[in-house]
Amino acid sequence: KLKDTNGIFPNKNVLLIIGDDAGFETQVYNNSICQTPNLNKLGEQSIVFRNAFTSVSSCSPSRSTILTGLPEHQNGMYGLHQKLHHFNSFDSVRSLPAVLQKHNIRTGIIGKKHVGPEDVYPFDFAFTEENNSILQVGRNISRIKELVRKFLHMNDSRPFFLYVAFHDPHRCGHTNPKYGEFCEKFGNGQPGMGEISDWTPKYYSPDEVIVPYFVPDTPAARADIAAQYTTVGRLDQGIGLILKELTDAGLRDNTLVIYSSDNGIPFPSGRTNLYDPGMSEPMLVSNPEHREQWNQVSDDLVSLLDITPTVLDWFDIRYPHYKLFNAPVHLTGKSLLPLTEKLVKSDDVLDFSTALFASQSLHEVTMYYPMRVVRTKKYKLIHNLNFKMPFPIDQDFYISPTFQDILNRTQTQVTTHWYKNLTEYYYRPQWELYDLIKDTKETNNLADCAEFQAILFELRDILHSWQLKTADPWICGPSAVLENSGRFKEHPRCLPLYNDLT
Amino acid sequence: KLKDTNGIFPNKNVLLIIGDDAGFETQVYNNSICQTPNLNKLGEQSIVFRNAFTSVSSCSPSRSTILTGLPEHQNGMYGLHQKLHHFNSFDSVRSLPAVLQKHNIRTGIIGKKHVGPEDVYPFDFAFTEENNSILQVGRNISRIKELVRKFLHMNDSRPFFLYVAFHDPHRCGHTNPKYGEFCEKFGNGQPGMGEISDWTPKYYSPDEVIVPYFVPDTPAARADIAAQYTTVGRLDQGIGLILKELTDAGLRDNTLVIYSSDNGIPFPSGRTNLYDPGMSEPMLVSNPEHREQWNQVSDDLVSLLDITPTVLDWFDIRYPHYKLFNAPVHLTGKSLLPLTEKLVKSDDVLDFSTALFASQSLHEVTMYYPMRVVRTKKYKLIHNLNFKMPFPIDQDFYISPTFQDILNRTQTQVTTHWYKNLTEYYYRPQWELYDLIKDTKETNNLADCAEFQAILFELRDILHSWQLKTADPWICGPSAVLENSGRFKEHPRCLPLYNDLT
Ligand SMILES: [Ca+2]
Ligand SMILES: [Ca+2]
Ligand SMILES: [Mg+2]
Ligand SMILES: [Mg+2]
Repeated sequence: KLKDTNGIFPNKNVLLIIGDDAGFETQVYNNSICQTPNLNKLGEQSIVFRNAFTSVSSCSPSRSTILTGLPEHQNGMYGLHQKLHHFNSFDSVRSLPAVLQKHNIRTGIIGKKHVGPEDVYPFDFAFTEENNSILQVGRNISRIKELVRKFLHMNDSRPFFLYVAFHDPHRCGHTNPKYGEFCEKFGNGQPGMGEISDWTPKYYSPDEVIVPYFVPDTPAARADIAAQYTTVGRLDQGIGLILKELTDAGLRDNTLVIYSSDNGIPFPSGRTNLYDPGMSEPMLVSNPEHREQWNQVSDDLVSLLDITPTVLDWFDIRYPHYKLFNAPVHLTGKSLLPLTEKLVKSDDVLDFSTALFASQSLHEVTMYYPMRVVRTKKYKLIHNLNFKMPFPIDQDFYISPTFQDILNRTQTQVTTHWYKNLTEYYYRPQWELYDLIKDTKETNNLADCAEFQAILFELRDILHSWQLKTADPWICGPSAVLENSGRFKEHPRCLPLYNDLT
Repeated sequence: KLKDTNGIFPNKNVLLIIGDDAGFETQVYNNSICQTPNLNKLGEQSIVFRNAFTSVSSCSPSRSTILTGLPEHQNGMYGLHQKLHHFNSFDSVRSLPAVLQKHNIRTGIIGKKHVGPEDVYPFDFAFTEENNSILQVGRNISRIKELVRKFLHMNDSRPFFLYVAFHDPHRCGHTNPKYGEFCEKFGNGQPGMGEISDWTPKYYSPDEVIVPYFVPDTPAARADIAAQYTTVGRLDQGIGLILKELTDAGLRDNTLVIYSSDNGIPFPSGRTNLYDPGMSEPMLVSNPEHREQWNQVSDDLVSLLDITPTVLDWFDIRYPHYKLFNAPVHLTGKSLLPLTEKLVKSDDVLDFSTALFASQSLHEVTMYYPMRVVRTKKYKLIHNLNFKMPFPIDQDFYISPTFQDILNRTQTQVTTHWYKNLTEYYYRPQWELYDLIKDTKETNNLADCAEFQAILFELRDILHSWQLKTADPWICGPSAVLENSGRFKEHPRCLPLYNDLT
């Protein structure tokens, strides 16, 4: 199908670049301190989306949604893949790389894979944590550059899909403290740190960093952010190197380039949360066929669930018809290509038809906290299913300087300089409804306000429909049981538990 | 190792028979109504354990513990294996069949497997739900008899381990309502039911059944139990058939026979609970080398975690040394063979050194309710980690006549005739401590009584030690975070969350 009438493949490729826990600490998103000249340049060649969101703020689940177009509850990657967490997508899920391979497109992955099983996520060319040190293939930008070069110069004229999944700027104080909180010392040439020849580390003073509203403005947090900036700098230089490889190989003009991240930054209300700091993502889409649209900003709502439809659209491939556990599978995301071809300004913030959805169930296997979200331009509705228990904290974030500082200040009754307190952070109501225009920080829950009941129920309906469409096993929780087999097979129902929850 | 000096295998085999959701509805355990002549006969050739317990009251997790000797939190089978629940043991777990195969013992499974992955649980001979109808290989006792015959008469002189995992007397109203609540009509020869030629169904009147204390004495529950008895009858006749096959093949005298069940009966406080109705199991061990001990009763505390050590002991095989995620793996169960060789009466109910343990995390993937238990002869301590949320109800049990009756009576405010009410059943305290001698029904929680604080803390310590020994990921929940990597690698710690839980 991809061959023209002479049997020649059109030279049409995709380069997907994903940062790990990357956020808006870039000049592209108006951070004037953290220097990111390479992302800047890519931004000038892209549509820059200011309303892009992940559907799940956890690494493996998010990567599974990027590579399948299906929410975590539908593809089976309910939580982290590695070690004892051990989540895996269902064997019959049809992932993007698997579909592309069937259409004779060459697939490659360099960096953090973090999904499984292998048969569901096959790549022809793979240098990942499964066969390499993640520090080497995910943070050593010289090594990454070489691997990209190797992939681009293979003697294979087929179109390609190359997924470069940086491990930067993920924290590493939890597993590799000697390299600093964000592995910002790894490869900097100092004694014991090794050397990354292509990297010129840039250092920041805690005084100069910009503290986002959801992070306490304290010396501990500022030092944490300064380290993060240095690591963002390595990511940025890595992106510069691989884009140069693409250009040098003469492939820039035929390659759709997408840059985004998997989940929110590893700070409170960020990663593992579905508040906007956990759910918002950078998203640059560079369509070389529509340079006249480059260097523009879009406020359209877009999702990481849109990446699979976008890539399929680029290659003109239809998503296959199949079922998972008797339920037909449909992609609920949309191709972003039309938005890169003609920018449409839509200012109707009350339009619910473009709503985005999020679904999170676990992160670590011990961190059960299912949340379901619908987000429009104006409203966000969060359903916390396990809401009576405290919001769980992951091993990595727990020992971060920022969270330790919050804990210590709370325990010693010193001002936290934080926009929330720990009790609020841990104990959340079952339903949270925010007016995102008036309340960008999501601190004024409207779910119990009489005048918002109509909005609440409308959003609940929209969310429920999406859960139905995506076969969400949690659709009836926590007040009812889903019955969908035996005499309920044709007409699944939520049957009430009468457990005082609604 | 198993060969003698002439290279001949001693003819030493194991037949492990596991009922599915089977309980004490047998004459062996003094139920005078439900007729089980074949279990009776096996009981006369066995030590009958009256204090046998599963470590987890859920099907796949329990079967994983039977076949590994490791609790669910250690082998990775945190919940159900099938379909979207999708739990699997870790790839590097060394299961009983895998260890036996390495020692050149022939392995077979007939019936319900319900664990994975395949590489962890390999059997040479396998007729299970993975390659057959579970009704045929799990409930059609004529088919099961033929498969046992086939296995026993294969031209292979090696010792064997044969695991016959009946699907009876599991409920089936949830998936196959046409066969009745317990599939008690399947194969009974009536129109549309098919025929099982070796089965003579026995029917019971709801009036005559014995209603256990944890089931409401109502017409609905009595009809439910009458159906269960009929299915127990099919299980019993199936056991008779396969024991006859063993005898006819001349193998009875060389074969250790074990009969038990995976989890509690599917009634309130039973399956998915770790109250005694969910945790107690029938357990018959017939050691042909010690017939002088047959037909005796033991009150020793024994566990399904003891099955793997017992089988290894029988074959004189040591459990291998290895690690899972950096933690050394040790079996915490014990061989039951000594108890079949010489009955020791131990009447010291205050002996904590023989304590048993239980660990449950999920059942369906949406049913997160981790519980950890230590049980001595006198005390049971239950730690409910997700205690602020209602106890979850599974799809199968929810639509059972007994539970529907409880729901309906509660809603219409009619007497339930039940020993609990729904609110108590759903909402459990974090810690439950029972004196099992004075309070066999576990309704008087002593955890908050001042005079039991010493006992409570002693039991908490014992439980914590076992969780440590078995590398429990939940060991710090719900009030702390486990840190065990980076600078905590050598000295793992529980670090406090200050979330108002203790
Ligand atoms: Ca991540
Ligand atoms: Ca069972
Ligand atoms: Mg699978
Ligand atoms: Mg695995």
